[in-house]
Amino acid sequence: MTIIEGKITGFTVHPLAFSDPPLINAAGVHEPLALRTLLRLEVGDVVAWGEGRGDALPADVVPALESALLGVDVFATSRIESVVDGVLRRLRPDLGAQARLITFSPIEVAALDAQGKLLGRPVSELLGGALRDKVDYSAYLFFKWPGHIGADEDEWGAALDADGIVAQAKQLIDRYGFGSIKLKAGALDPDLEVDAMLALADAFPGMPLRIDPNGAWRYETALRVARRLEGVLEYLEDPVLGTDGMSRLHAETGLPLATNMCVVETEHILPAVKSDAVQILLSDHHYWGGLRRTQALAAVCEATNIGVSMHSNSHLGVSLAAMTHVAAAIPNLAYACDTHFPWNRADDVVPEGGIDIVDGAVTVPTGPGLGVDVDLDRVAELQERFVRSGRTVRNDGDYMRRWDPAFTDARPRY
Amino acid sequence: MTIIEGKITGFTVHPLAFSDPPLINAAGVHEPLALRTLLRLEVGDVVAWGEGRGDALPADVVPALESALLGVDVFATSRIESVVDGVLRRLRPDLGAQARLITFSPIEVAALDAQGKLLGRPVSELLGGALRDKVDYSAYLFFKWPGHIGADEDEWGAALDADGIVAQAKQLIDRYGFGSIKLKAGALDPDLEVDAMLALADAFPGMPLRIDPNGAWRYETALRVARRLEGVLEYLEDPVLGTDGMSRLHAETGLPLATNMCVVETEHILPAVKSDAVQILLSDHHYWGGLRRTQALAAVCEATNIGVSMHSNSHLGVSLAAMTHVAAAIPNLAYACDTHFPWNRADDVVPEGGIDIVDGAVTVPTGPGLGVDVDLDRVAELQERFVRSGRTVRNDGDYMRRWDPAFTDARPRY
Repeated sequence: MTIIEGKITGFTVHPLAFSDPPLINAAGVHEPLALRTLLRLEVGDVVAWGEGRGDALPADVVPALESALLGVDVFATSRIESVVDGVLRRLRPDLGAQARLITFSPIEVAALDAQGKLLGRPVSELLGGALRDKVDYSAYLFFKWPGHIGADEDEWGAALDADGIVAQAKQLIDRYGFGSIKLKAGALDPDLEVDAMLALADAFPGMPLRIDPNGAWRYETALRVARRLEGVLEYLEDPVLGTDGMSRLHAETGLPLATNMCVVETEHILPAVKSDAVQILLSDHHYWGGLRRTQALAAVCEATNIGVSMHSNSHLGVSLAAMTHVAAAIPNLAYACDTHFPWNRADDVVPEGGIDIVDGAVTVPTGPGLGVDVDLDRVAELQERFVRSGRTVRNDGDYMRRWDPAFTDARPRY
Repeated sequence: MTIIEGKITGFTVHPLAFSDPPLINAAGVHEPLALRTLLRLEVGDVVAWGEGRGDALPADVVPALESALLGVDVFATSRIESVVDGVLRRLRPDLGAQARLITFSPIEVAALDAQGKLLGRPVSELLGGALRDKVDYSAYLFFKWPGHIGADEDEWGAALDADGIVAQAKQLIDRYGFGSIKLKAGALDPDLEVDAMLALADAFPGMPLRIDPNGAWRYETALRVARRLEGVLEYLEDPVLGTDGMSRLHAETGLPLATNMCVVETEHILPAVKSDAVQILLSDHHYWGGLRRTQALAAVCEATNIGVSMHSNSHLGVSLAAMTHVAAAIPNLAYACDTHFPWNRADDVVPEGGIDIVDGAVTVPTGPGLGVDVDLDRVAELQERFVRSGRTVRNDGDYMRRWDPAFTDARPRY
């Protein structure tokens, strides 16, 4: 028997800012910088990483988390969760359960990365083993401005109508080989968005298609969209806000409905099950509380007859690796996962030649832990950019109002 | 980084038979010998153990399982499951999903024992970490004969009425300090069984009490029992067979109902949730497919607002350790678990001085793996007893018919 020493000896938080194209959505438009948090754990000589949302590890709780977590065993992830929970309940009683899980998530991912590096095993193996060698991702299309306000046109160009969206899909599919497509909607007039979906169906016959307006539609609009897209969609994502409307729309159209909005915490599951409001749950380890909790969520979905897919926010390669490991270990993952990876890879902390999407899929890394290298110079550069930006929260609405002062993200809008 | 070698190098099945008192239940009465399966995995020098039901690893599939599992990594438990599943689907297409999980369970437990021994960590730590230092168990009372047919009275004596049950409870509580009580019912006239519960309530004021007739009652009988025991029960277990009756009884009485009969597979959960038939699920890693699946089941229960407790069959100390590790790692375990341990400990493969119940609880073992030693001489002795017995299945009904030729276990009986 070998005793593997697993005590956390270092805990460092790197808030990062990186380039993001002007992607339009129901909340406004992506600002020039996206925010994200990288967490570095040390266990003796082993350096491990976790990536979380921009709001995952706010600066005011980091020192207390660090002192509470130093010395805790990286193998005891439930104990780590309870330590994190305790610190947050004490220092930030304003935070709800989901916010605490958002903080825990990158720490759990880093703990699993550390475990894998200590044992010489990929994270997927610690989650029970990869059930597939590759995980499929879908092309994530956005209506977008040609470039940011005051800047030149970017490499992707404009996409403000059906032709622009088809051209964007072609770009993404040429580069990454995607085998399915999701369009972020709720950005423009719904009929124009439906036109774009019909144009995609023409341009890519047989390819699974989804559309996601983030609850920006009124019930009648959602019903009209569902009728116009009959036979075209793999599923319809968050057409309306709330389980009542989702339940009614599913009953009226029979269309499978997906969500990452009306079921985002454990307590939301039972009402959605009882009202048959959700047929596909878009899991996201960043706010469901890490990879093990995402596996448990998939088991809940299996038991409650809900399909499993995966949601994404703007992210870097560390998260793409974490998403891929857990996706590989989930038996009932039945759809290509969402990812923003192509939109943000130019600034990625995982260098080119590291994790990538090929033929629409990410090969499950087989190296120890997450199996990705992190470029420390790039981390320092993105952290410096974060500090210089003076931003700590994302605000797509304010940025949209620089273009259209009358913009409001009140939903439903259409 | 250390590379921990985890390939399975040895796979040995030990079918065991050990002494069991004449405990009466709805199916008949326990025979003089109980059957159980011990699985020995080797990973190089490491020897690891898992314990399963008597029917967990039938002799006809053992050679194929052994050859399929040699060389598989003990860390990849999902891959082990898929290997086991594949062998059984090929050799035993007659077996259903639950039977395959029953076979997988002791192998998963042994794989986790091996992981823990390879890493110098308790199994609870591999399940995320123990959330409690001790796991409470309840005194499991049975109506019983004074001794087996043709044998002397055993150390427990007879329990065939309320006085006998109270005396048995005192014996068990004196020895083990139990803080809650469960009575196996469905054995005698229901009114006599209710009298015994009322006598227990008098003798042990304030102690949580449960009764479990294994679905032996008609609906009207269950309703009468529920009325007579109003205010006395912590919960009522499997009063009637099937979710319809459970749902109706809960609606009519408001009493929390527990089950290990009407929800025993994933597909049973949703109908029970929708009809509110079950308020407490008695998990059992031996037929839910191991410790990780039991954790996932607990997550399903959390999401569907069902309480979690734990079921038991006659078992030995290896299973008591496994039950204790997983119970310690389940956040929403809210009731003392069931165990037959006191009834079978005289023959246990874990020697006296090993795992034990003190003050009604088992301290979560902190040694590597399951944290229990197995007495190889005892294993050989119990395996020899198994061979000599010529038995491969338990038959409480046939044994009861030697006493009462008219006995039938048809349910409902009362």
